[in-house]
Amino acid sequence: MSEQTKLDEEIVTNGINVTEYEQIVAAVRDDPELAKFEFRARNVWEMGGFNRTTISGLYGAGEEHGTEGRCFVVEAAEPPVLLGEDQAPNPVEYLLHALTSCLTSSIIYKAAARGVNIESVESTLEGDLDARAFLELSDEERKGYQNIRATFRVKSDASAEELKEMAEFSPVLDVVRHGTPVTLQIEKA
Amino acid sequence: MSEQTKLDEEIVTNGINVTEYEQIVAAVRDDPELAKFEFRARNVWEMGGFNRTTISGLYGAGEEHGTEGRCFVVEAAEPPVLLGEDQAPNPVEYLLHALTSCLTSSIIYKAAARGVNIESVESTLEGDLDARAFLELSDEERKGYQNIRATFRVKSDASAEELKEMAEFSPVLDVVRHGTPVTLQIEKA
Repeated sequence: MSEQTKLDEEIVTNGINVTEYEQIVAAVRDDPELAKFEFRARNVWEMGGFNRTTISGLYGAGEEHGTEGRCFVVEAAEPPVLLGEDQAPNPVEYLLHALTSCLTSSIIYKAAARGVNIESVESTLEGDLDARAFLELSDEERKGYQNIRATFRVKSDASAEELKEMAEFSPVLDVVRHGTPVTLQIEKA
Repeated sequence: MSEQTKLDEEIVTNGINVTEYEQIVAAVRDDPELAKFEFRARNVWEMGGFNRTTISGLYGAGEEHGTEGRCFVVEAAEPPVLLGEDQAPNPVEYLLHALTSCLTSSIIYKAAARGVNIESVESTLEGDLDARAFLELSDEERKGYQNIRATFRVKSDASAEELKEMAEFSPVLDVVRHGTPVTLQIEKA
């Protein structure tokens, strides 16, 4: 089979190469070790509420990725109402970004794998947070979000019910809904 | 008291205006409603694993903020090993960014409030994720991170124990460790 023929036979749905997706599923079924990923982030404090995260390499599918050239720098800051200078979104806003981008991609990937075309996805997220616990003014409130509301508008032939089931494969949704153990180690520099 | 005298009396520690911080604590003690915040994010899918979040307004301390001019656009994508084109960090990497930036700011703010100078904060985070649940190859693995390891190096007079207690005020840490209810609504466009 020529390369051209092979390319002609590749199926791409919603921008996802479904042929490759199915090859990954087959490879992981044969060797579950290929499903193991490690993601990483490195942060350096600048000043006040302003700090900077570098994201480069990751491990997955049995090897290191991004060792040459992959490097993203993402800033976090606080708005003036939280005593910052607003150079960037704040950490709890980035949590909403992580969640909504993951829900969106989960719909797109799952739909592609099932042969469902998606025309558009838009979403809005809102999170309620009471600052009293952080300010040590209350033991009754929690520190993090009390609730998060995610509303999606999707243009597609799939039913709302099926789209929701696709979204619920989201890894970030799983972490936010059910929690993940975090080992926190502080060393003196 | 003249404005100059007032400015001279303001205490700034770690880049945080502690005088204003204490005014906020006093105001919230008098009126707990001022502690209520709503953070927001709006996402639009581009193609494949690539999508874009806009972060602008927020509600807090009794009023809307950022209605004029505050607008951040944050992109998310997937690396080639996850069938993307690597235009930006991916959603689970942004979750690590949200967590590490929040832990860092919690140390900075709490230290400032307690009069503790921080010289530097650096951190590395690693998260383990098994893709089998997403690929529908296993019911035994979870979809999200199995574990997250956060290692901080802090230059300061405070003990590692006190720094850890400060970090544990982090709202994102609370969400990631303990989970938050997420209402997910899908509408057909």
